[in-house]
Amino acid sequence: MHTPSEAPLVGVIMGSQSDWATLRHAWDILEMLGVPAEKRIISAHRTPARLVDYATTARARGLRAIVAGAGGAAHLPGMVAAMTTLPVFGVPVESKALSGMDSLLSIVQMPGGVPVGTLAIGKAGAINAGLIAASVVALSRPDIEAKLISWRDRQTAEVAEEPVDEG
Amino acid sequence: MHTPSEAPLVGVIMGSQSDWATLRHAWDILEMLGVPAEKRIISAHRTPARLVDYATTARARGLRAIVAGAGGAAHLPGMVAAMTTLPVFGVPVESKALSGMDSLLSIVQMPGGVPVGTLAIGKAGAINAGLIAASVVALSRPDIEAKLISWRDRQTAEVAEEPVDEG
Amino acid sequence: MHTPSEAPLVGVIMGSQSDWATLRHAWDILEMLGVPAEKRIISAHRTPARLVDYATTARARGLRAIVAGAGGAAHLPGMVAAMTTLPVFGVPVESKALSGMDSLLSIVQMPGGVPVGTLAIGKAGAINAGLIAASVVALSRPDIEAKLISWRDRQTAEVAEEPVDEG
Amino acid sequence: MHTPSEAPLVGVIMGSQSDWATLRHAWDILEMLGVPAEKRIISAHRTPARLVDYATTARARGLRAIVAGAGGAAHLPGMVAAMTTLPVFGVPVESKALSGMDSLLSIVQMPGGVPVGTLAIGKAGAINAGLIAASVVALSRPDIEAKLISWRDRQTAEVAEEPVDEG
Amino acid sequence: MHTPSEAPLVGVIMGSQSDWATLRHAWDILEMLGVPAEKRIISAHRTPARLVDYATTARARGLRAIVAGAGGAAHLPGMVAAMTTLPVFGVPVESKALSGMDSLLSIVQMPGGVPVGTLAIGKAGAINAGLIAASVVALSRPDIEAKLISWRDRQTAEVAEEPVDEG
Amino acid sequence: MHTPSEAPLVGVIMGSQSDWATLRHAWDILEMLGVPAEKRIISAHRTPARLVDYATTARARGLRAIVAGAGGAAHLPGMVAAMTTLPVFGVPVESKALSGMDSLLSIVQMPGGVPVGTLAIGKAGAINAGLIAASVVALSRPDIEAKLISWRDRQTAEVAEEPVDEG
Amino acid sequence: MHTPSEAPLVGVIMGSQSDWATLRHAWDILEMLGVPAEKRIISAHRTPARLVDYATTARARGLRAIVAGAGGAAHLPGMVAAMTTLPVFGVPVESKALSGMDSLLSIVQMPGGVPVGTLAIGKAGAINAGLIAASVVALSRPDIEAKLISWRDRQTAEVAEEPVDEG
Amino acid sequence: MHTPSEAPLVGVIMGSQSDWATLRHAWDILEMLGVPAEKRIISAHRTPARLVDYATTARARGLRAIVAGAGGAAHLPGMVAAMTTLPVFGVPVESKALSGMDSLLSIVQMPGGVPVGTLAIGKAGAINAGLIAASVVALSRPDIEAKLISWRDRQTAEVAEEPVDEG
Repeated sequence: MHTPSEAPLVGVIMGSQSDWATLRHAWDILEMLGVPAEKRIISAHRTPARLVDYATTARARGLRAIVAGAGGAAHLPGMVAAMTTLPVFGVPVESKALSGMDSLLSIVQMPGGVPVGTLAIGKAGAINAGLIAASVVALSRPDIEAKLISWRDRQTAEVAEEPVDEG
Repeated sequence: MHTPSEAPLVGVIMGSQSDWATLRHAWDILEMLGVPAEKRIISAHRTPARLVDYATTARARGLRAIVAGAGGAAHLPGMVAAMTTLPVFGVPVESKALSGMDSLLSIVQMPGGVPVGTLAIGKAGAINAGLIAASVVALSRPDIEAKLISWRDRQTAEVAEEPVDEG
Repeated sequence: MHTPSEAPLVGVIMGSQSDWATLRHAWDILEMLGVPAEKRIISAHRTPARLVDYATTARARGLRAIVAGAGGAAHLPGMVAAMTTLPVFGVPVESKALSGMDSLLSIVQMPGGVPVGTLAIGKAGAINAGLIAASVVALSRPDIEAKLISWRDRQTAEVAEEPVDEG
Repeated sequence: MHTPSEAPLVGVIMGSQSDWATLRHAWDILEMLGVPAEKRIISAHRTPARLVDYATTARARGLRAIVAGAGGAAHLPGMVAAMTTLPVFGVPVESKALSGMDSLLSIVQMPGGVPVGTLAIGKAGAINAGLIAASVVALSRPDIEAKLISWRDRQTAEVAEEPVDEG
Repeated sequence: MHTPSEAPLVGVIMGSQSDWATLRHAWDILEMLGVPAEKRIISAHRTPARLVDYATTARARGLRAIVAGAGGAAHLPGMVAAMTTLPVFGVPVESKALSGMDSLLSIVQMPGGVPVGTLAIGKAGAINAGLIAASVVALSRPDIEAKLISWRDRQTAEVAEEPVDEG
Repeated sequence: MHTPSEAPLVGVIMGSQSDWATLRHAWDILEMLGVPAEKRIISAHRTPARLVDYATTARARGLRAIVAGAGGAAHLPGMVAAMTTLPVFGVPVESKALSGMDSLLSIVQMPGGVPVGTLAIGKAGAINAGLIAASVVALSRPDIEAKLISWRDRQTAEVAEEPVDEG
Repeated sequence: MHTPSEAPLVGVIMGSQSDWATLRHAWDILEMLGVPAEKRIISAHRTPARLVDYATTARARGLRAIVAGAGGAAHLPGMVAAMTTLPVFGVPVESKALSGMDSLLSIVQMPGGVPVGTLAIGKAGAINAGLIAASVVALSRPDIEAKLISWRDRQTAEVAEEPVDEG
Repeated sequence: MHTPSEAPLVGVIMGSQSDWATLRHAWDILEMLGVPAEKRIISAHRTPARLVDYATTARARGLRAIVAGAGGAAHLPGMVAAMTTLPVFGVPVESKALSGMDSLLSIVQMPGGVPVGTLAIGKAGAINAGLIAASVVALSRPDIEAKLISWRDRQTAEVAEEPVDEG
């Protein structure tokens, strides 16, 4: 559980409730590593005013990184990045027809000047967005750095030597 | 030449000066058909405040359609459409590495609720964005409708019967 | 329900009965916004004569926009656009093998001179085709414009602040 | 040279003059094999009436196959096939942005019921469209069959045993 | 049923038993149109000798067209075409990972000199391969031409005027 | 010029000398913003030992972020990320045949557990990799944050109101 | 069963337990052909040290070929190939969003200097990786060569002459 | 220079003279490593008889590996592999319209049972085909193994520490 008394350092935002099934993996990683975070639904297309408000105040409110996920013509990560100098990490949500290739290109192909650090399509990307946001926070938080290293070590240790047949 | 005394009915906007080489084909069509128009550079990523201002005032200023072109992770058409009920027509500008496939998907794959009528990648799309914007204007302007019909008739008449060898 | 006494302003056409599962989302939007509409199956390939008849008479019958959906080598939207100066909006129906990428390219990549304003693949595209057609009609129908604005406002209002876990 | 006194057996049609640079390779093959042919520019989008006229009269005029080439949202081959029972062979012309992938999918992905035998993108496809049309004609013309066999034999004989360095 | 006493005019061949689920649609069309046909499994990769034998004797055995379907790196249609001057029609079978895009490119992108008239991926392509092979046979068989015209007319007549909601 | 007396905070690494034409844009941005940096050629494939050495010592040497660019089967960013908890930003270098789509997928599609924040293909991506690395450094360096904000403001200010015709 | 007393000649390695469902097909082929083999999970990203150890000692331990499979940004085959002169055969495991196209490009598009002989995506590729590794071993093991020839002969013999309808 | 007195161990074959510009890079590597080789033009489509002859006699003539390159619907590598148990390495030659993506899929997506170890598109793939063929030969030729190791060591040594600006 996130300690309620601590101000969030990472914002996890997404274009719609349906994206939460993907983005929750970012949230879970941040929680596991003890990174204070907040989560919001912010639709670039349906709530553009909320987008402007969130992006322009994020830094002043103390955030140190933003994880933004969306699908299809996914404009949320890039539009947030247009209005903050915080590092923004984009998660392309898998779309129905094009399997997230549209989401990926809409997020990663940003013009020079406004960066979005983009992760893989879907769940793996959400996990990794949480991890890279944590790694940014960890640069000035040795306690989180320690947890991150432990997590990585456990991940390594859990790889079996040989594959086994599964039911 | 557009008559300066007439208020613009169509806005032709683009993400950067470099997009003008493509978007000018929309402008030229509108000019040829006598549709009063204005042209602006509005970068969703570099000038988000200008974007909000333009999109939210477009209808009240008398525009009846917007042609918006951009390349790569092209967010301009969709973000404008998020802030107006005017019909918005998107032109995917051909990008360097991915030949405009990124531009196309970033523009056309909008989520349900915020439409962008998308045209072809590049010059053909810009011409057609001008034409479809003109066809919208023409619904209440018989003079423009007449010019549009003439233009289409000429286009048909100019198709030769047989191909010829060219130098 | 559409009032039977009012002449249709938008035609919703599709290549086959199987496309109705997608195109009905355009129909539903038009109905919700009170835009008088008609629906027809017109196959560019199986009923070319019907296509010619429909397209060449659409304007005179009072239509102000056409929504056309088809899948695979989707020629219906472009062929209709070739025979009318009405704005035509294309909906790429999701195809089996190629997930609608063939439908999308067959509709959007029209040559300069004959525009089709193309929406997203599948249901989202159909919804948006209904919306953009309504926005065209709304330019001269303040009652529909008012409904469109209300619909957009409700859409914005319905976006929750935070995502929630779902069963 | 085609003997002017002989009625054409194959029609080579294309969407615009600019497609001739590709389609002429079909023409040249037909000429080399002595297949009487005709060539026409027929734009599905700019000259739809010409399209209907050509396709519906082709069989009665004595044609035995049609080679149709177009680029982008290439509707010509499929629309011709919709209005004739003659075998129609499609040539996807290489397009600027998408290198003919749009042309290919627009031609080959026809729905069940209206076939277009599609060849490769560009020059190779045009050559092969000429060859396959000739092979259809050759089924009832032993003189053309003989020429086709000779051409194929020469093609085989001309393959060198070893590659050589070229300036 | 095909009348056993009549020699086959069309060969329907496929790379493996699993392709039959697709190719049977070509077979069914040929049967419905009364085109005498034969069906064979011929694997370019697993039975190359059978391939050579089939392709080099096809014409002499009286075939007038070959329908060849395969999936993945689909070499059967092109290799058959390399060894006969009969018209060869290729059916890209839908593959597991790449949905038949690999099959399509492996069949359609033949080099100049050896044509394969390629149809759509999957069932639609198989139906159309049957139809185009029948249209070739029909050029010298008025009885089959008549059946083909009837089939096309029925197909047109069966298109309903309006879409209906389905359970 | 980077002040030689200051220890580097960002490492800019690339797979080969030929990638420098792209990666230098990251370097230039870092220099312009006054971020101390170092540049190295480290080939995942040709110098795997150098890769291990660089990645495993990067944090202890004081780096706070790594920008890694490569093309084709681009393994450098992911392999570095596998051996450090520093944030790693990947730049897909445009490849010859596939225009960087192979580079992009090889970098961005990392499995859950090892993140690479990926930027656009080519020059735009390199610029943005420099910017996002700077934004990470800026979190604890107000002087760099100030320069970053100035740079962004200048970028906004430099967008002209209207496009102009260019020679 | 592999005879435990014989030293392995082929190593079958994969990035995770989940890849075993694919790679076991390589294993089964090797077992059927009597090729002594070993299997290991080696994650390029999660166990980079294990990777270095495995690759750099493979030759000295007597292996003659390595089969390596992974999915997504699949770096395992290329990184192993970077650290051994043994022939390395790569199997692109089918990924969720992009169906293995990312795996394929990440494996096959290696830069000049470090080869990975890449097989098809998924099960077919795993079977073929086993076969080609066996063919390498067979060059100096006539007993395995004989089994390989038998297997290929059986494969040919098992192709039925005609397709049959299946339940 | 290859010593004329030594029988070739590797066959380098290609579909046409134009492929030599790519395949010569395989040849050059084999020459540099002292691997006796032969080179032939063998077109699967234009010289199918030559293909059968070459593939079925390759092993008996003493070859130990075959490098086969072709472009477009590239059937040569797979068809050779269908008729030999030697390891076959495929080089997708870059094609005009589709940049070798068609060549790649036509070569790599072989069905289970007939393997082709596929390398990258174009020059890099040709170099690597030479290297992997050499690595197979090297398994029983310590002199070639030594040269291969030296070559790889030189390759590693030649990677500069830092990138340099180039004119």
